[in-house]
Amino acid sequence: MSAPRRRLDVIAHHLNPVTVDPSTDTVLAMEDERNKTSFDVRELTYFLDGGKKTTQLKERLMLSIERDPDMRNDDHYDLTKDEIRERTMKKFRNMAHYVTTDDEQTSFLRLALVSIVDPGFWTRFGVHYGLFFNALRGSANDNQMSYWLERGAASLNGIIGCFCMTELGHGSNVQALETTATFDEATDEFIVHTPSLTATKWWIGGAAHSATHSVVFAQLIIKGKKYGVKSFVVPLRNPEDYSLKPGITIGDLGKKMGRDGIDNGYVQFSHVRIPRLYMLMKHTKVSREGKVKEPPIAQLTYGALITGRTAMVVDSSASSKRMTTIAIRYACVRRQFSATPGSPETKLIDYAMHQRRLMPLLAQTYAMQFAGDKLLKMYNECTKKLQNAGGADEEATKEALDILKEMHATSAGLKAFCTWSALEAIDKCRQTCGGHGYSAYNGFGSAFADFAVHTTWEGDNTILALQAGRSLIASYKDAVKGVKLAAGVSYLNRREDLKKASAGKRSVTDFEVIKESWQACAAVAVEKAALLFEEAVGKQGKTQDQAYEYTSQLRFLAAQVHTRGFLVTGFLETVESAPADIQKVLKPLALLYAMWSIEENSGLFLQAQYFSSEQIDQIRVYVSDLCLEVRSQCIGLTDAFNMSDYFINAPIGTYDGNIYPKYFDRINKSSPPGQDHPYFEKIIKPLINRNMEEPDDIEEEEEEEDGEEESKD
Amino acid sequence: MSAPRRRLDVIAHHLNPVTVDPSTDTVLAMEDERNKTSFDVRELTYFLDGGKKTTQLKERLMLSIERDPDMRNDDHYDLTKDEIRERTMKKFRNMAHYVTTDDEQTSFLRLALVSIVDPGFWTRFGVHYGLFFNALRGSANDNQMSYWLERGAASLNGIIGCFCMTELGHGSNVQALETTATFDEATDEFIVHTPSLTATKWWIGGAAHSATHSVVFAQLIIKGKKYGVKSFVVPLRNPEDYSLKPGITIGDLGKKMGRDGIDNGYVQFSHVRIPRLYMLMKHTKVSREGKVKEPPIAQLTYGALITGRTAMVVDSSASSKRMTTIAIRYACVRRQFSATPGSPETKLIDYAMHQRRLMPLLAQTYAMQFAGDKLLKMYNECTKKLQNAGGADEEATKEALDILKEMHATSAGLKAFCTWSALEAIDKCRQTCGGHGYSAYNGFGSAFADFAVHTTWEGDNTILALQAGRSLIASYKDAVKGVKLAAGVSYLNRREDLKKASAGKRSVTDFEVIKESWQACAAVAVEKAALLFEEAVGKQGKTQDQAYEYTSQLRFLAAQVHTRGFLVTGFLETVESAPADIQKVLKPLALLYAMWSIEENSGLFLQAQYFSSEQIDQIRVYVSDLCLEVRSQCIGLTDAFNMSDYFINAPIGTYDGNIYPKYFDRINKSSPPGQDHPYFEKIIKPLINRNMEEPDDIEEEEEEEDGEEESKD
Repeated sequence: MSAPRRRLDVIAHHLNPVTVDPSTDTVLAMEDERNKTSFDVRELTYFLDGGKKTTQLKERLMLSIERDPDMRNDDHYDLTKDEIRERTMKKFRNMAHYVTTDDEQTSFLRLALVSIVDPGFWTRFGVHYGLFFNALRGSANDNQMSYWLERGAASLNGIIGCFCMTELGHGSNVQALETTATFDEATDEFIVHTPSLTATKWWIGGAAHSATHSVVFAQLIIKGKKYGVKSFVVPLRNPEDYSLKPGITIGDLGKKMGRDGIDNGYVQFSHVRIPRLYMLMKHTKVSREGKVKEPPIAQLTYGALITGRTAMVVDSSASSKRMTTIAIRYACVRRQFSATPGSPETKLIDYAMHQRRLMPLLAQTYAMQFAGDKLLKMYNECTKKLQNAGGADEEATKEALDILKEMHATSAGLKAFCTWSALEAIDKCRQTCGGHGYSAYNGFGSAFADFAVHTTWEGDNTILALQAGRSLIASYKDAVKGVKLAAGVSYLNRREDLKKASAGKRSVTDFEVIKESWQACAAVAVEKAALLFEEAVGKQGKTQDQAYEYTSQLRFLAAQVHTRGFLVTGFLETVESAPADIQKVLKPLALLYAMWSIEENSGLFLQAQYFSSEQIDQIRVYVSDLCLEVRSQCIGLTDAFNMSDYFINAPIGTYDGNIYPKYFDRINKSSPPGQDHPYFEKIIKPLINRNMEEPDDIEEEEEEEDGEEESKD
Repeated sequence: MSAPRRRLDVIAHHLNPVTVDPSTDTVLAMEDERNKTSFDVRELTYFLDGGKKTTQLKERLMLSIERDPDMRNDDHYDLTKDEIRERTMKKFRNMAHYVTTDDEQTSFLRLALVSIVDPGFWTRFGVHYGLFFNALRGSANDNQMSYWLERGAASLNGIIGCFCMTELGHGSNVQALETTATFDEATDEFIVHTPSLTATKWWIGGAAHSATHSVVFAQLIIKGKKYGVKSFVVPLRNPEDYSLKPGITIGDLGKKMGRDGIDNGYVQFSHVRIPRLYMLMKHTKVSREGKVKEPPIAQLTYGALITGRTAMVVDSSASSKRMTTIAIRYACVRRQFSATPGSPETKLIDYAMHQRRLMPLLAQTYAMQFAGDKLLKMYNECTKKLQNAGGADEEATKEALDILKEMHATSAGLKAFCTWSALEAIDKCRQTCGGHGYSAYNGFGSAFADFAVHTTWEGDNTILALQAGRSLIASYKDAVKGVKLAAGVSYLNRREDLKKASAGKRSVTDFEVIKESWQACAAVAVEKAALLFEEAVGKQGKTQDQAYEYTSQLRFLAAQVHTRGFLVTGFLETVESAPADIQKVLKPLALLYAMWSIEENSGLFLQAQYFSSEQIDQIRVYVSDLCLEVRSQCIGLTDAFNMSDYFINAPIGTYDGNIYPKYFDRINKSSPPGQDHPYFEKIIKPLINRNMEEPDDIEEEEEEEDGEEESKD
């Protein structure tokens, strides 16, 4: 095979990226763009991170991740499912070390950074610490907690956990789970059992290969009576050799749309016995005699749900940062068509339509980041208050329940609409990169596939949006009764004024006008849903549940407008309270997000009669103008996200703009030229070198005129 | 390893699908749903296929595909890139046989069916027949055609072709390609050359492993003069052993977002010499002396572009058929939450919101099918007229150019908006299936990844939409001049009346009102774009190109409304001309599509003042009502797509509704239980069985008080 070898030489000589002049057009173009930046990028990074110290801490962590040989990602896009899974498990040990030694902030930042590099690993690791361990923390009593800690629940020394909630036939409706945990008083044990195929625990992250133990959600049954779904620790495997415990059946769920690093499996229990005290008894308790003591305030047990939602809002902006950085850098150096024949082609970023496609997504990324910050603050406050709740201090418990309620509604809406927006943004960014966006090595395909699950897990987006809408109707009813509402929904107290309000002769870009417009639009949307709901329970005599079902479309709309308003208003408020220098940078971005959001929902604003048809046309023009304004700063605005090329992991999104040699290099590293043809002899050769001549037809037998003639000879 | 073996027995005994009672809840639920069907499904299938004979032909082809062992797809989702590529090439031979023996209709149908099963194969195969061979047919003169046919261009005997158009640095702007073809009069040859890294031919389907020959687009240069981009046949490999020809460098582009069955590569030419007559000379001719003769009508050479677009509109409905079938079948048997405690859970399909999510997508699928039918008819007519064009018959040429112009604008808009809608529909359907939509084995992930490329190749969607908008502005200008326009845009002749029109007191569901509403809305949108354009060239003194650029956002909007109107109107017209029985079935679906389309664009309709705010509210209610109406027929309406379980290839979308055992079975076939742990010893054991005790600290050396003391002893 001398020909391929010769070809390899040609490549080495002419096309090795090292021999390409670094001052190519694209590099100069990127320098040009970067030079347009009129603000201090570093200061904006500090602002986004919440201060210089955090930026420095993040950079220290980024360095340690980049240098970790197990965290290499240059070959990530080429790994098979089995290879990714093995690689993912390799990362576990390192990270386990850090989780047990890092302080809380460091740990949070480290995991957020790892999530950008390898979402599958983040999940696999999160199943142990986020789901299994948090379930223990939230539901084990003190003795139980000590017991599991001693056995390695935090250190991973002898225990890796998984979380058996979902079943093949049951997802969102946790109360309908079929798995049973029946108390056997004689032996002081629970018998955990899978009674049917649909009761099979499904989608269990870590079950296929990683976990030794599981927190299992099952119907508590004592002396024939059902007490609802509770959680139990059930050992699955012997840590010494990973053989299965008796009565445990485990299967591998195999390939998924994305996140193949997580080894999802199914689990079936066949009359598996566990000690009574393996039931987690912080809330509901079962005594030696099988007496059940329910907790006084059931809601407090649901706090854990909001952890995941908060993380996903944060992840929405993190993902968008990476995607917009790639697409915008590409647009700043890629050229296509020239304005006048013979002149250099125009950069993509200079096309009005291209600005229209990317600048609003950049603004949205910032909006989601600020909403995530706000939610995270609320979450930390909420967690603190929950720790003091449930005890003797009734006031503390009431406060905790209030903030939990608001947190639930806000996090539900934000989780749904931010993950939807971020998922859409990934593919929109991909499309702006044309064919090169379709190469695995530029990251969009796997980013979409990995992110997609955010819309259905930890609360399906549609269900969450409807829950947020339900809570808005409840707030509306309170407002009608004259209750003074919490800040986030206080606009419903002013609904009568808002319904009459309009922009009038005021500027549509005035911050107060914008805020009022969203409140007015949301008030109208919530009222429409609430009135229909009341008609349903009143005139039509439906039950509450039926009435909520009947209003689902309007409830959804109300949640959508309310949440978008939350994002817009939050962005404007962040700008208002920012230092002057930052304010100047962020203002056009905030205005763009606001104007674009109105444009996208123009029908609702027209129906609410807040803006006139002429104002909507004007807003369309503002969107284009603001796109152009933001465009000049777009490299600075993405540089401020402070993601190194390692985190970007896409040659067409490289920092220095030298995209073509780096892309070419990546391709040749992934599939080195000059290799033997993998299937020429076996498959192609017989096809293209086949004999095309039809074999001769079978000749008709000559009809013997008369057999006897021969004998005449 | 006795434990895993024992587990396997448990599975075989308890959970083998064969032992599951077939009359499970889901099977009964599916029967119930199917029994609701109030029309003859078979008749609707005939109608969709264009007649009973076509349905029968399709079924014959479906059978032959299903039975072809090379076309098995039960393991498709688990194949690695290298396995898929090899499998894909295996399918080539069979299909090559059929392409050369099938008549045109059969061939078209067969490839459309194969495209559903394996989009990557469809592309790989299509590169030879659709791109390479069609380029020969369109651009080779008769002698050249005979020459290449004799060498196996149709039979694949010695030739597999690829199509070198796109370059690393150049996509949509074909005229800017860098590759050169320089005439050497001395030897009567062209020298084909890649002058820079960005001139590398990129994304070349079939280049990595399949192709022997290529049609190469390059700048024609003769005696230092450039004549623009022409096409040339360049041999790449020796068919005997697939070694590369001298001067050819080929690399493998590796992993992509989807369609890994196609072996995309890059190609570089280093002063490659080809005979002069390898330039395709049906249009532009180069003589032995290097004299160039350009064709009289350049536009006629662009006919080939519309083939791909038409195929993609057809593929949009085909993909949507499969996706909506899976999601709707799942929704009809999956239960979640019960209306009253203790009663069976409600089917997903019975939730108003779930109907809202799926029924419009079902209606859209039908709309796209009918638009595709219309386009295909137009395409066939166009192709026929093009064959008669360019000769002595000037009338025929004019006719051909007219229809080509209309075909270009219509196919551009439809290709863009249908592929966008279909791509969105895939992920929307995926999301309605919750977690199970994320399993690779239910098909959504790969369907999205495979389909995604439709939005950027063969004319980037945004560019095509803008071209369609440009053509609408041109039509508007004609209308102002009093020119009587073609049927598709004739509403612009009535723009003054339409601008004043409104629904008034007429019903919003009246077919005539709906049609008029879209015409009015489109007329307003086109006029806004056209007036801005005129202002730009007039007052602002911009060039035509600059003015088009300036109006890009409004042009895009105009194309969007126009195309959506085309889809809505086409659907209504199909219903009107259908037999009475079919009309009854399709009418609610058509109305749903129309109402939903207005709801989605409510801002534009309000601005056009065609519908009042109250009517928009009413339309929202109609959408919900129509969703409910269509819901009762949704199994019949998807059954009519006539896709067998083989084509569906998703256990949760199985025809009989027996989703859980089939899904469970598929999982266990893909990852058979009871196998050894792949990396316990290597990775997990050292992690979880590690020694956690910190080694003793190094002891401080005891400070010797005084060295000399010892000597005192």
